[in-house]
Amino acid sequence: MEPQRPLILITNDDGHAAKGLHKLTALMRTLGDVAVISTDEVMSAKSHSCTIFEKLRAREVSRSEGFVEFRCNGTPVDCVKLAYQKLLPRRPDLVVSGINHGTNAATTVVYSGTIGAVIEACMNGLTAIGFSLDSIDREADFDHLDTAILEITKKVLKEGLPQGVCLNVNFPKRSDEPLRGIKLCRQASCRWVEYFEEQYDENGELFYDLSGELVSDDVTPDTDLYALRHNFVAVVPTCFDWTAHACMDTMKDYEQISIKS
Amino acid sequence: MEPQRPLILITNDDGHAAKGLHKLTALMRTLGDVAVISTDEVMSAKSHSCTIFEKLRAREVSRSEGFVEFRCNGTPVDCVKLAYQKLLPRRPDLVVSGINHGTNAATTVVYSGTIGAVIEACMNGLTAIGFSLDSIDREADFDHLDTAILEITKKVLKEGLPQGVCLNVNFPKRSDEPLRGIKLCRQASCRWVEYFEEQYDENGELFYDLSGELVSDDVTPDTDLYALRHNFVAVVPTCFDWTAHACMDTMKDYEQISIKS
Repeated sequence: MEPQRPLILITNDDGHAAKGLHKLTALMRTLGDVAVISTDEVMSAKSHSCTIFEKLRAREVSRSEGFVEFRCNGTPVDCVKLAYQKLLPRRPDLVVSGINHGTNAATTVVYSGTIGAVIEACMNGLTAIGFSLDSIDREADFDHLDTAILEITKKVLKEGLPQGVCLNVNFPKRSDEPLRGIKLCRQASCRWVEYFEEQYDENGELFYDLSGELVSDDVTPDTDLYALRHNFVAVVPTCFDWTAHACMDTMKDYEQISIKS
Repeated sequence: MEPQRPLILITNDDGHAAKGLHKLTALMRTLGDVAVISTDEVMSAKSHSCTIFEKLRAREVSRSEGFVEFRCNGTPVDCVKLAYQKLLPRRPDLVVSGINHGTNAATTVVYSGTIGAVIEACMNGLTAIGFSLDSIDREADFDHLDTAILEITKKVLKEGLPQGVCLNVNFPKRSDEPLRGIKLCRQASCRWVEYFEEQYDENGELFYDLSGELVSDDVTPDTDLYALRHNFVAVVPTCFDWTAHACMDTMKDYEQISIKS
């Protein structure tokens, strides 16, 4: 009897039609059986949100040997929850999300539906990786990522990841030079500097149109931003413990506050 | 000339009608000038999502001496962005979010719109605190929190917080005993064990109804869950650096992966 092929669950936040999703699906099918669950709509910037008030639906849209595809009306986090709890015949060996059209490096990770799905999987004890390309072009070229995605995935399938840790992998967009290699990085600190342009709709009512740019001066060589700017693949081991452990000693005096009323 | 009163921005994820928001507003008005920006709809489980495809709107609904209130059709993160960038006359000295009807302790923090707003403020260099009560009762009693909320807030207004750190404060629900004090805690690890009940709508179409319970065996005395279970206020210094720093050495071998194609 042949060993069972790994079951790989794929999701994303750019919707079922995204080129990055199709690319990731093609790559993962060379490594195992694949279940895709993507969203009906584009779910960028949905972060870790999940559906609790609306009716959550999912339907199978395609099935063949070693492959099944579902669509869901919820968020990427909903997709992961539904897939592993209701739709799949067994727990997936790996959850991958992406390839996102746009960076999820540095602090942008907090907004990301792609990484929301990865964290959700990780919180539930599943091995998970998010892949993102530093280009929001719908027709972006992903072909320079093939080897890196396959080799990182093979290593994770073979070795697993530490408990409570997932991978956030970001790629530079295609340039004339080949990728220089992989850097294990920390998440840089950054922020979006936003512009809310005041506009008026057809009824003369004000609304705010958001645009923005990523600003960071945290680009020491140990950061993901540094890696991307120097044409390296940035791999950030990522966790869901948000405790600022470095402050636990200095802030101990909060316990001295008297709250007797 | 009298010193300027601090400007305190308040938001939440339970919508403008929530009792917890009104309670927090009343408390903050004793400490400074207050601007409230709440959401039209309940935004529970919206996490750090923000509005990029729909038209974002905000309107002033009330104004008096030292007080202004706005409503917004977006998420709590949108509220913070809009308020400090477009709506307020100056940067707020403090952003507070809540009082949430329901716990944001342990890993539940990743789903929270209340804490999404706090993190957003923190990422933009604003001092920020989230307050949550371990009860989802719409009519929950918040009066036992007054002194703790005021004293924690006064300390933060006076001393500030370390850069990149905000506070996630969770309270036990009212019991026969007074609160025992404040514990500075780490975020416990937990997960929601969900149940997706298969139901059918009026057209006979399947949907999934989500319910669940919080499960954790991470209740050592340094955790927020332990504090709440023992009738302490749980204060978790919280950051937006999700790097799993403890793995940086052991995972260095990712840099040895060859990605030459």
